[in-house]
Amino acid sequence: MKRIAILGSTGSIGVNTLRVVSSLKGRFEVIGLTAYSNVELLAKQALKFRPKILAVKDAGLESDLKAALGSRKIRIVSGEEGLLEIISRRDVDKVVFALSGANCVTPLLDAIERKKEIALANKEAIVSAGEIIMKRAASKGVRIIPIDSEHSAIFQCLEGVERRFLKRIYLTSSGGPLLGVSSKNFRNVSREFVLRHPRWKMGKKITVDSATLMNKGLEIIEARWLFDIGESDIRVIIHPEAIIHSLVELIDGSVLAQLAKPDMRLPIQFALTYPRRCGSRVEHLDLVKARQLTFQEPDMDRFPCLALARQALRKGGTYPAVLTAADEEVVANFLAGKVSFSRIPHIIEGVLSRHKVRTSKALTVADVMEADTWARMEARILCYR
Amino acid sequence: MKRIAILGSTGSIGVNTLRVVSSLKGRFEVIGLTAYSNVELLAKQALKFRPKILAVKDAGLESDLKAALGSRKIRIVSGEEGLLEIISRRDVDKVVFALSGANCVTPLLDAIERKKEIALANKEAIVSAGEIIMKRAASKGVRIIPIDSEHSAIFQCLEGVERRFLKRIYLTSSGGPLLGVSSKNFRNVSREFVLRHPRWKMGKKITVDSATLMNKGLEIIEARWLFDIGESDIRVIIHPEAIIHSLVELIDGSVLAQLAKPDMRLPIQFALTYPRRCGSRVEHLDLVKARQLTFQEPDMDRFPCLALARQALRKGGTYPAVLTAADEEVVANFLAGKVSFSRIPHIIEGVLSRHKVRTSKALTVADVMEADTWARMEARILCYR
Repeated sequence: MKRIAILGSTGSIGVNTLRVVSSLKGRFEVIGLTAYSNVELLAKQALKFRPKILAVKDAGLESDLKAALGSRKIRIVSGEEGLLEIISRRDVDKVVFALSGANCVTPLLDAIERKKEIALANKEAIVSAGEIIMKRAASKGVRIIPIDSEHSAIFQCLEGVERRFLKRIYLTSSGGPLLGVSSKNFRNVSREFVLRHPRWKMGKKITVDSATLMNKGLEIIEARWLFDIGESDIRVIIHPEAIIHSLVELIDGSVLAQLAKPDMRLPIQFALTYPRRCGSRVEHLDLVKARQLTFQEPDMDRFPCLALARQALRKGGTYPAVLTAADEEVVANFLAGKVSFSRIPHIIEGVLSRHKVRTSKALTVADVMEADTWARMEARILCYR
Repeated sequence: MKRIAILGSTGSIGVNTLRVVSSLKGRFEVIGLTAYSNVELLAKQALKFRPKILAVKDAGLESDLKAALGSRKIRIVSGEEGLLEIISRRDVDKVVFALSGANCVTPLLDAIERKKEIALANKEAIVSAGEIIMKRAASKGVRIIPIDSEHSAIFQCLEGVERRFLKRIYLTSSGGPLLGVSSKNFRNVSREFVLRHPRWKMGKKITVDSATLMNKGLEIIEARWLFDIGESDIRVIIHPEAIIHSLVELIDGSVLAQLAKPDMRLPIQFALTYPRRCGSRVEHLDLVKARQLTFQEPDMDRFPCLALARQALRKGGTYPAVLTAADEEVVANFLAGKVSFSRIPHIIEGVLSRHKVRTSKALTVADVMEADTWARMEARILCYR
């Protein structure tokens, strides 16, 4: 029985993680659950999974949560200290980072410090502080198992492969909801259209990122750190069927790929049960039914976010943190109806171009946080121009 | 520096093995080469690679070979004893079985007995005596690295996977030269048409086997023994582009695949350098150029050899040996213009149906050899009817 904490249990990944936990009866005990503000769902999950501790973002929500739990008594905490309390518990073996946003850096480093097993769905922490996180993880002997379907695919492909034999990574992308939309129609694309992803049912922020392909850009940066590979050796291929979740090319020219029907429960389960595998409720892939898998180059003109991400990665330092923070801010403004779709990349580009290069070599968490705050403010200013 | 012997160096696999050896300068020393009867090419190879020993099938060819070598003095042997002498040499680390036919069983067992590393391109030995060979290999701790592109793909996919997590194997098939030919045209299909394989340049026998899909049938039997998996868990998918070389499905529903441009040098090199990988001269795969990969069910009506192979595998004992021996004989007669293409499966089916079930449990090499001889005779009789 493995004892887990799920940070962000009311989001899309969190909910699916609990579905996987339910399906793998008796293998996992849920010790802690946390939510940003969805007290109702968190209470429902708590009544079903009976964790020992719950956390919400704001202390002000604690009483609502208590009320929603009725007669069930569960310890309730809040804020970053709340997360840290959960992560630090001796009875937590594995921490699932299912929350989004760059404010995951500190809790993630904390989990590494305490040598917890880590299942990571959060993109922003690795994007903005990948070098710091991976160094710390290596020094503590902690392995980070990615939940993102692409990085899970790469991780699975590399299981039997020595690092020195890896030549290149191919990240696949379904192309997102705008794959077939011409650039001149980008200006008028509605929120509703953008949020209708053809292959994956996900949270809103990541769905918008899939439409701009910023999601793939962030994944390039993630892959760079998770698999210790140069930016120029990470390629993106558009694969609309979303069945090949990514590929690795080895030095002899052999290519290994991981395939499955698109279903987040599979990479979640893999990250939970690793290094074991268990039967799952995921519908199995039938290639004959799928009939064909197609591939195309990404259109760099329609999707400038891909180039912005590569640029930020090449510049290094705090640039990736600025990229992801600016993106979070602009996407929030797009979702609030305050910015048009076609302006998203321009605003991010504007923020990046205003960022001052840091010359110091050793990036610190404080640098990352500072850059994050600066970028959000800068992005907000540009959004309202 | 690894010291190798290549049995069957003048065939398609043998020639490609020597190309790989040339390209990996300084990594391999060629100790022995053998040929069936192509003395001219064998002598040419010997002058280039300077082995210490050469073998031909018939003693009568020894003097021709000696003459072809001119002033170069190399030990020449012949027949099965010749092969065994090469295999037994202390200075041979690895034996590449690049010869075809079921008469490979004894030399293969000999190489296992002497704990040589084994790179196996020969199908017939594993098909007819797979159980005996794999048991012997396991007891001696000898690993057999397959060269067949499909089995090499499966082997590569399973490198980081514990056997208990394997659920199913998908063998891909290009569909062979007759994929688009309707069954009513099978009767009039010419040798020339059959020998024009769309994806792979191979020897004649295997090209005919690709046209009947018997090749895939034999591969099912090979996979059964090489990967210790039940017949019903081995599926065949037609994949005309021949880029995915095979796939494995794991118990959680995750599917791993190996891809590459069709080029036998890649699995040959993998089998030579295993467990390492090296750079290769193989053209690297470009999925965007490939554009699409398609899949379909094999047509069991047009290609009855697939069902015959499954039947032989399920019946077990000497049936697979009878299957492959009958096939060799009938294909030789087809190539000699004595049997029409559409009669190939019928004759093999006839031989299988005349075979007497062996009730004894423990199959011996003698049983296999006896069944082989019987099946060839029986096939010849049916060919001339």
